[in-house]
Amino acid sequence: MITFSDVQSARERIADAIPKSPCPISYTLSRICGCRTYFKLENNQMTGSFKERGALNKLLQLSEGDCRAGVIAASAGNHAQGVAYHATRLGIRSVIVMPKATPLIKVANTRDLGGEVILHGGNYDEALAHARQLSELQGLTFVHAFDDDAIIAGQGTIGLELLEEETRFDAVVIPIGGGGMISGMAVALKELRPDIRIIGVEPASFACMKAALESGAPVEIDAQPTIADGLAVKRAGDRTTEIVRRFVDDIVTVTEGEIASAILKMLEIEKTLVEGGGAAGLAAVLFNKISGLDGKNVAIVISGGNIDPNLLMKIIERGLAKDGRMIRIRTLMRDRPGELARICQHVAEAGANILDVAHNRAFANLEVGGVEIELTLETRGRDQVDMLLEQFKADGIIAEEIK
Amino acid sequence: MITFSDVQSARERIADAIPKSPCPISYTLSRICGCRTYFKLENNQMTGSFKERGALNKLLQLSEGDCRAGVIAASAGNHAQGVAYHATRLGIRSVIVMPKATPLIKVANTRDLGGEVILHGGNYDEALAHARQLSELQGLTFVHAFDDDAIIAGQGTIGLELLEEETRFDAVVIPIGGGGMISGMAVALKELRPDIRIIGVEPASFACMKAALESGAPVEIDAQPTIADGLAVKRAGDRTTEIVRRFVDDIVTVTEGEIASAILKMLEIEKTLVEGGGAAGLAAVLFNKISGLDGKNVAIVISGGNIDPNLLMKIIERGLAKDGRMIRIRTLMRDRPGELARICQHVAEAGANILDVAHNRAFANLEVGGVEIELTLETRGRDQVDMLLEQFKADGIIAEEIK
Repeated sequence: MITFSDVQSARERIADAIPKSPCPISYTLSRICGCRTYFKLENNQMTGSFKERGALNKLLQLSEGDCRAGVIAASAGNHAQGVAYHATRLGIRSVIVMPKATPLIKVANTRDLGGEVILHGGNYDEALAHARQLSELQGLTFVHAFDDDAIIAGQGTIGLELLEEETRFDAVVIPIGGGGMISGMAVALKELRPDIRIIGVEPASFACMKAALESGAPVEIDAQPTIADGLAVKRAGDRTTEIVRRFVDDIVTVTEGEIASAILKMLEIEKTLVEGGGAAGLAAVLFNKISGLDGKNVAIVISGGNIDPNLLMKIIERGLAKDGRMIRIRTLMRDRPGELARICQHVAEAGANILDVAHNRAFANLEVGGVEIELTLETRGRDQVDMLLEQFKADGIIAEEIK
Repeated sequence: MITFSDVQSARERIADAIPKSPCPISYTLSRICGCRTYFKLENNQMTGSFKERGALNKLLQLSEGDCRAGVIAASAGNHAQGVAYHATRLGIRSVIVMPKATPLIKVANTRDLGGEVILHGGNYDEALAHARQLSELQGLTFVHAFDDDAIIAGQGTIGLELLEEETRFDAVVIPIGGGGMISGMAVALKELRPDIRIIGVEPASFACMKAALESGAPVEIDAQPTIADGLAVKRAGDRTTEIVRRFVDDIVTVTEGEIASAILKMLEIEKTLVEGGGAAGLAAVLFNKISGLDGKNVAIVISGGNIDPNLLMKIIERGLAKDGRMIRIRTLMRDRPGELARICQHVAEAGANILDVAHNRAFANLEVGGVEIELTLETRGRDQVDMLLEQFKADGIIAEEIK
């Protein structure tokens, strides 16, 4: 298990190339959350995430021979960019194995950073197996995304930076994928501040660390897709689980809608782009998953901001829906002049804005002569939505919200 | 005309309440633009734009009686929030007249900041006329959005902050709406650095300052809608035009697509949300509208980040389209099994990703038995798009890009 001094050494090693990230308070989100929320903005790093810290700490400890041979990693995202960027900067060859279905933009970004991308396998595990194989065949050093002491110590430097802030934090909220960041940070934070609360956050659909703690050891979980793709790890690390069990106070989970809502809040209020995994911490605070934070100083680690624009558009929609600011309503009406006007009149009276109207004749489960209308509306919040639905009901219009 | 010392006084007046905004370099955008690009991030201000500076400078100079009576402004956006926020903070009543069609979120935000919102008029001019009328009737001080000495001096404080940076800037690129920010900044910058280049940027569809300079005086322009809604001013200010004529070196214009592309670049690379007007400066640098910047230190003012999520989604799409990363292709094919498979095969071979397929039978201008297909594709850039279109042609598939 790594120690505090490993994290300190990592800090010295990477200090020249990785600047301290800012940690501003958000007054507006503090008001909304009921505690003083500070955001450790790792999305500001050169490659858009904290992953550089561990990757660079690992690369700087390679032997000369290892440097000449090069490194290999498997990743569809931030770890790939962190490794490729710093390897190229240091003149080290980097090979990155990515699953075949990796979004084009992530492949292009990794190549732009000098990584040799190999597309292989239908999912991350297959890419990982291939990377390990190539590592042996070609004598490339394998750089694990989280279950490696150098990686853990590198990510832990975020904790040291938090300790240097003027603010004395009562709690630190940290997203968990495989556990590299939270375990490194926990070692750093608890050494000097044993009283500080460390809370990990996982997507409800991908809670591998929670499962590892409950089972007593890392286990492979049944997972569903998550918009927090950076946290989509099926099996927690062995090294990370051991540290988390010892130092982390609590692990909570957040839903996809909660993550989407948090991304939208960061975008609208803080004007900063956060990826799904990066927003998990705020989601937990925003939706009261953690008790005892009232009025406290809370540091929330915003781990990254690499989000595909196509996915971002879907997430904005989902966030708006979660907040009651965009809804879809399905109504049934007779297919004759004046019916749609009546419905639209109600929407106008409720003060909502119509974004889209879609008609469904052929497949609607209706008597002939009826039509199903799907309205997409811009709304102010739940109150307005409920009022509108009441209004439809009072006028005898069959309408239901599509969730 | 205001002087340098007016800007200095404004700086002292507002310093306690408006922190200096950051001005980081972007290494990635420097590489893309071919000059060292620094971003003055006014989207980081409490209400998401620079407008607070002028508003607060104005409010702090009101007489006691004027404070008791309150203030009024007309605005659908950033000026509204800047006035409302600081008026409320200072215990001054603020009335904001907004056009009826103002997006719900902007109305809600202004109310949340303590502004009394009155929705009036079909456009900004009608709202403005109503605000001036109420100002007289109710004895409220009218706070103009740009053509006011206190406002101009307040916005000019951005220029003083740039002069305090370690970097010695060769050029400063500033968006122009009515000209308040650029004129204040020009007065501040040219006093101490007569050699610094000051370049204004307007949307091509709303270039009121260019028109004012060409006509010799402010004129009302024929304007088209712009995604840079903060810059949608039909007639430049009298005061601002005079200063711009004297101190500004050049004014360039940018298209809607260029603005969208700049917004997307800031989001993806800098992880920061910028509104249309805020991105105009980067758009000008990115699309080579300004000559002589190669290798120079260029400060680009990112004036604000208040953008409606619904609009943002449209802009992301537009930015992707402008960059050749999302395209719509209309193809004509026979309505029989296997035809769509053939088209999709070409798309797959080109390595593009299909986002959406829409069929149009009834209204396609075709012989019966034909069908029009609209494909929305995720692509890597222009090269790939051109290759795919070539491939369609070679296989006898009628296909055209929808722009």
